[in-house]
Amino acid sequence: MEKKLQELKTRLLEIDDLEMAASVLNWDQSTYMPPGGAASRARQMSTLARLSQEKFIDPEIGKLLDDLQPYGESLPYDSDDASLIRVTRRDYERATKIPPAFMAEFYQHGSLSYQAWAKARPENDFATMRPLLEKTLDFSRKLADFFPGYEHIADPLIDFADYGMKASSVRALFADLRQQLTPIVQTIVNQEPANDSCLRKHFPEAQQLQFCEEVARQIGYDFNRGRIDKTHHPFMTKFSLGDVRITTRVKENYLGECVYSVIHESGHAMYEQGIRMDLDGTPLAGGTGAGVHESQSRLWENVVGRSRDFTEFFYPRLQKTFPDQLGSVSVDEYYRAVNKVERSLIRTDADEVTYNLHVMLRFDFELMMLEGTLEIKDLPDAWHARFEQDFGLRAPDDRDGALQDVHWYAGAIGGAFQGYTLGNIMGALFYDQALKAHPEIPDQIRLGKFDTLRGWLTENVCQHGRKFTEPEIIERITGGSIRIEPYIEYLRGKYRQLYSLS
Amino acid sequence: MEKKLQELKTRLLEIDDLEMAASVLNWDQSTYMPPGGAASRARQMSTLARLSQEKFIDPEIGKLLDDLQPYGESLPYDSDDASLIRVTRRDYERATKIPPAFMAEFYQHGSLSYQAWAKARPENDFATMRPLLEKTLDFSRKLADFFPGYEHIADPLIDFADYGMKASSVRALFADLRQQLTPIVQTIVNQEPANDSCLRKHFPEAQQLQFCEEVARQIGYDFNRGRIDKTHHPFMTKFSLGDVRITTRVKENYLGECVYSVIHESGHAMYEQGIRMDLDGTPLAGGTGAGVHESQSRLWENVVGRSRDFTEFFYPRLQKTFPDQLGSVSVDEYYRAVNKVERSLIRTDADEVTYNLHVMLRFDFELMMLEGTLEIKDLPDAWHARFEQDFGLRAPDDRDGALQDVHWYAGAIGGAFQGYTLGNIMGALFYDQALKAHPEIPDQIRLGKFDTLRGWLTENVCQHGRKFTEPEIIERITGGSIRIEPYIEYLRGKYRQLYSLS
Repeated sequence: MEKKLQELKTRLLEIDDLEMAASVLNWDQSTYMPPGGAASRARQMSTLARLSQEKFIDPEIGKLLDDLQPYGESLPYDSDDASLIRVTRRDYERATKIPPAFMAEFYQHGSLSYQAWAKARPENDFATMRPLLEKTLDFSRKLADFFPGYEHIADPLIDFADYGMKASSVRALFADLRQQLTPIVQTIVNQEPANDSCLRKHFPEAQQLQFCEEVARQIGYDFNRGRIDKTHHPFMTKFSLGDVRITTRVKENYLGECVYSVIHESGHAMYEQGIRMDLDGTPLAGGTGAGVHESQSRLWENVVGRSRDFTEFFYPRLQKTFPDQLGSVSVDEYYRAVNKVERSLIRTDADEVTYNLHVMLRFDFELMMLEGTLEIKDLPDAWHARFEQDFGLRAPDDRDGALQDVHWYAGAIGGAFQGYTLGNIMGALFYDQALKAHPEIPDQIRLGKFDTLRGWLTENVCQHGRKFTEPEIIERITGGSIRIEPYIEYLRGKYRQLYSLS
Repeated sequence: MEKKLQELKTRLLEIDDLEMAASVLNWDQSTYMPPGGAASRARQMSTLARLSQEKFIDPEIGKLLDDLQPYGESLPYDSDDASLIRVTRRDYERATKIPPAFMAEFYQHGSLSYQAWAKARPENDFATMRPLLEKTLDFSRKLADFFPGYEHIADPLIDFADYGMKASSVRALFADLRQQLTPIVQTIVNQEPANDSCLRKHFPEAQQLQFCEEVARQIGYDFNRGRIDKTHHPFMTKFSLGDVRITTRVKENYLGECVYSVIHESGHAMYEQGIRMDLDGTPLAGGTGAGVHESQSRLWENVVGRSRDFTEFFYPRLQKTFPDQLGSVSVDEYYRAVNKVERSLIRTDADEVTYNLHVMLRFDFELMMLEGTLEIKDLPDAWHARFEQDFGLRAPDDRDGALQDVHWYAGAIGGAFQGYTLGNIMGALFYDQALKAHPEIPDQIRLGKFDTLRGWLTENVCQHGRKFTEPEIIERITGGSIRIEPYIEYLRGKYRQLYSLS
């Protein structure tokens, strides 16, 4: 058994090397690659992806997993070896159930569709995208059908992002959230909006970057195992547990972009940096799902980063960096500005309160499209109608309506969005538990000390990597399943200080 | 045949993708990788190298080459397909004659030896390196012995770097060069050395980098297909013909470092950028050997970059960038400073005249060590003796003597050095031919126009990639074989303006 396990690990490490190499190529493509490198780079990345996929679906791996199954089951569920065998089997079954030719076709379609979208969105041209999106829906349904026995056709697609979650449970959770959230949103957006003009002065790029690096370092992002570069869209990527990088973008006329995106991506990165080093190079060395990953980024960005306590610590330093721009702006004014809640059209720019309404619209539409109760041709109008209902606001066109997000235009319809709101819910759930264990955390944050919170998150979430599913992580931490109350409490508690809430 | 050729090309492209991916990982390691990434990165690069090697020595490739051989021979020698089959066969035979286990052992030894050297050199500790170097010599001899039938044991090792050259012919060429060069060196170094204090002021890094980028762009390095980053040692690397990058280092207290290293590396890069784009992804898409590669870098750095004509164009711009430092320094003073010839201990810092004596010492010692006429234990003293004879100077220790260069301590003994001086000789040979075809080149250079020279080099050298061997390239250009006269003429012509030469 020891020998077979070793052989499995050796094979998995080789596959990991290929995947990590592809990630380096992708990072380079987004950061430093000159334009002339594009054509060959796309091919090089696809070769690496194909080779790692071929090596992973090798029947020898299936055989090793079969042979190791009884051994895995004889070990404690939470042991490393049992977890490795269990998680690898799950990945293997997923990978082998989808014919490689289908995936190749779907990727190719996704790439064409993405290119068309990049042109069609600025031109507000849904008509061009309609047949492509219909084909995407068709591909997405076929993809789900490789996993028969589902309760809802979206379930296999949700599994890819948030293993263990289901359309039915997420739908129930979101319905609940929607009911609680809507009155809060309504109450707030009918009040005078916060004035965020203090964020909209001129803030030179170099100083923003230097300041953000300091903040990231302070909250615990380890620069010995990471770095920050600039890209068009911020992201986190990993080449090993010793090299977890983030990117950011800077708007010189809007301070809110770089600062909070760096804290957000640092949250993602600290999750990966917090995984036990001896899991490196195995399928366990990663985040367990989109929801838990977002819980870390959104906890650091919003629950911590936009909190009053954090701002008390952080803002005097920010003022020192930008004395001309912020010298006469009070901490209160700044705090209100970075927590401005408003009706807005764009999900990625939305505040933490209304953000969830953006997500739930998309999640509901994904289910309806997959079920066949919403046809692609009706999507633009359905979007406008639902948006008006949720926000009392109508996008002037499809550019900021049904064409807004890249997800459906570059990948599958299904499973793409729920993780963002699950992350908000889980972030508050975990923070609530951390506070119960360590009520001193807010006081520490006000002094710029983050070790206790980071230590608790590492201990309870990060270190395990993919050993436990999202529901298992929640169960281990709370003794129960996911619930929205701490999140609603958190929002009520915070926004009651900023707005009048009934 | 068409189908077999296509299959060969498909296999070679996949191998190229893996090799290029390894190059990206290596570039990242030298430029931006955080320290924590080191351990996994070494493994990732070695996995990619192993996979590409495995795929290349696959007997299927041997079979395809066998089947294609008659077809290749039926085509004109200089056709793309004939060249592809011929060059791939050469690479294949080389790769398959060396047992993979031997190479793995040698690489591992090289890596250990390199690490030991990095510590031993600053400590002037040859004793520690002696057994390691003896083992390297042993490996080097065994490596040569995988290619029986050689005239001199160094020949197979010289072939790796400069295919078609031999110990006997290089030895004869160098003996000739030495005879002609020694009196020139003697005459110059006995005169008052040039004053290069104008280069040794404070030149801020950012301005140096910006200026160097402008110079590289002006001489023709294509930034649409390249970029410059900082590394500990400057190098050129390629990820496709559309992405050929260079690196540099900056000394704020010495202007000569960054400027001329950027021109040098741009020369290497323009060679690769000048290869016909439709050869991309094949074994033909590379420089044909170390000598021709150095001919391009050294031609641009020295023959062009340190010429009076280039300086006339370039220096006023440099003055404008550094008015405080250079405003009162005349073009003549600057020109003398960057062409200062002196007895010096370090090869990489040496001027273009004495440089060859450094190289020839190392080349001769490589042959003697391989032959067994120089034992490793006697290397340090032999170095000091020969150095005193050649330079009238004695290194104070082994640090700047036998421990100076990384080459023997990280790779094979044999074939490592001749390319530098071959490059000087070939650079002058090619430039001489370019001037015969286009006597207007120097006048153009004085005006900052480099198209004619670059066009001639692209047409006659770069575009072919590896289609022709070094002797073939020389034969095509000059109608004969390599000769030193143009190089000696060039040195005499140039240095007679700077020093009194008899």
